[in-house]
Amino acid sequence: VSAWVNGRRRSTLDHRDRGLQYGDGLFETMRVCRQRVRLLDYHLERLLEGCTRLQIAAPESTGLRRELERMGSGRKDGVLKLIVTRGCGPRGYRPSGHEHPTRIATLHALPKAISAAAVRMRLCKTPVSVNAHLAGLKTLNRLDSVLARAEWRDAQVWEGLMSDPDGNWVCGTMSNLFVRRGALLATPLLDRGGVAGVMRRWVLENAAGVGLRAEQRRIRSEDLISAEEIFMSNAVVGIRSVGAIERTAAGTVRISCTDAAGQLRARLDLL
Amino acid sequence: VSAWVNGRRRSTLDHRDRGLQYGDGLFETMRVCRQRVRLLDYHLERLLEGCTRLQIAAPESTGLRRELERMGSGRKDGVLKLIVTRGCGPRGYRPSGHEHPTRIATLHALPKAISAAAVRMRLCKTPVSVNAHLAGLKTLNRLDSVLARAEWRDAQVWEGLMSDPDGNWVCGTMSNLFVRRGALLATPLLDRGGVAGVMRRWVLENAAGVGLRAEQRRIRSEDLISAEEIFMSNAVVGIRSVGAIERTAAGTVRISCTDAAGQLRARLDLL
Repeated sequence: VSAWVNGRRRSTLDHRDRGLQYGDGLFETMRVCRQRVRLLDYHLERLLEGCTRLQIAAPESTGLRRELERMGSGRKDGVLKLIVTRGCGPRGYRPSGHEHPTRIATLHALPKAISAAAVRMRLCKTPVSVNAHLAGLKTLNRLDSVLARAEWRDAQVWEGLMSDPDGNWVCGTMSNLFVRRGALLATPLLDRGGVAGVMRRWVLENAAGVGLRAEQRRIRSEDLISAEEIFMSNAVVGIRSVGAIERTAAGTVRISCTDAAGQLRARLDLL
Repeated sequence: VSAWVNGRRRSTLDHRDRGLQYGDGLFETMRVCRQRVRLLDYHLERLLEGCTRLQIAAPESTGLRRELERMGSGRKDGVLKLIVTRGCGPRGYRPSGHEHPTRIATLHALPKAISAAAVRMRLCKTPVSVNAHLAGLKTLNRLDSVLARAEWRDAQVWEGLMSDPDGNWVCGTMSNLFVRRGALLATPLLDRGGVAGVMRRWVLENAAGVGLRAEQRRIRSEDLISAEEIFMSNAVVGIRSVGAIERTAAGTVRISCTDAAGQLRARLDLL
């Protein structure tokens, strides 16, 4: 792993960094395709919105964009991860307002097994953390995803779905959920928890282009069962069709593959 | 700040540490009094319970206790903070199960203005994060407390109360809530969110000794208004009586001071 901390090649950071102390920061995980950072505008917009909501001094946008483009240009294909923390501070939750944010950028190889094949998914017991003031943001507070992802080791299962305490399905541990029935494409509302992925945004914006009406709403188990198609979105892997959902008790739901996902994927490949 | 990382004097840590990447870890904030770590047993028990629940390999208990006692013995009075993370790993939420935990211990001066005087408290807008699988643990996912604590700068206000999405008061940003009416001492249930403080445990265990019946239950605004006494507990500052609660709209609730808090404080001072 190559790492740059505040633009300099380094692999360590100060133990007083609030990113470590409190998870006081945000991150972006970006796909590098043919030396370019895919959906970079969307990543930057989400990051800056997150900084505003957490009252973190946002990195200067033009310089940051240039830095990320330069890092991506060194790589044919891969993953570029950027962490922005509030920076160092004394002990105590209260931000002084004078912290200098820390920026940590790393390049990684693509995860294995990125393909267009439909994947298996499980239903996780670990719920998504609910907090309306943090909902949608990709913060460093990710223990819900960590515990949900620790629920299985079967490499045949690609993703796990997480619900809120009221039984609404909110997101995968690392991806967003889409459920299609006819021309209606639904994805969970993220007003209480979950991460609003940039690929989710892209799908919402491109649904009409493949003849779908997209909407954000609560998704219940009945919606999964009655779906004609289910797929997951993620900035690195794009769009993955779900071929089967494992149910803890009653066996497996099989889902007929894959119409809209294929059409959206074809569009995405043009980027 | 003096820092020890895995027992060695150091001030940096690896950027791949999952404590930074995902807030994947726990911490304890301990009071050092007369060269001794107060309530060390309770801190160690909570930490090890947290490791079990997060499936983090717990540090060896006897060695850890000795290390903390040694650090405390160098200081007449102060704060000893210990962070335990899952350790380093590759990108991705899933723990491999083979990580080596990182232990970061730091010594700090006591916060200013620790006294027995009654404090002012506000009612925060930032809600507590709700997740039954994390509730009660002192994890590194503390953005709810950070945002709540960022709501005010008035140094006259010592603490802010946080509620869950259903309007139950759960905890302060850095302390636990107790509400007394007659001989009944109530503290919020922490089954959905909040940190179960070691001082909260101590108060629950010592309430009977000062003639109180303690119970954990939901606390509503009505309970604050009808209280005869309100106090907050925190491992570093002990027990602080609340003299007034600022209300965003309707002004201030004044609370008659302070019976049980004084008696409990006298007991605590014997430790």
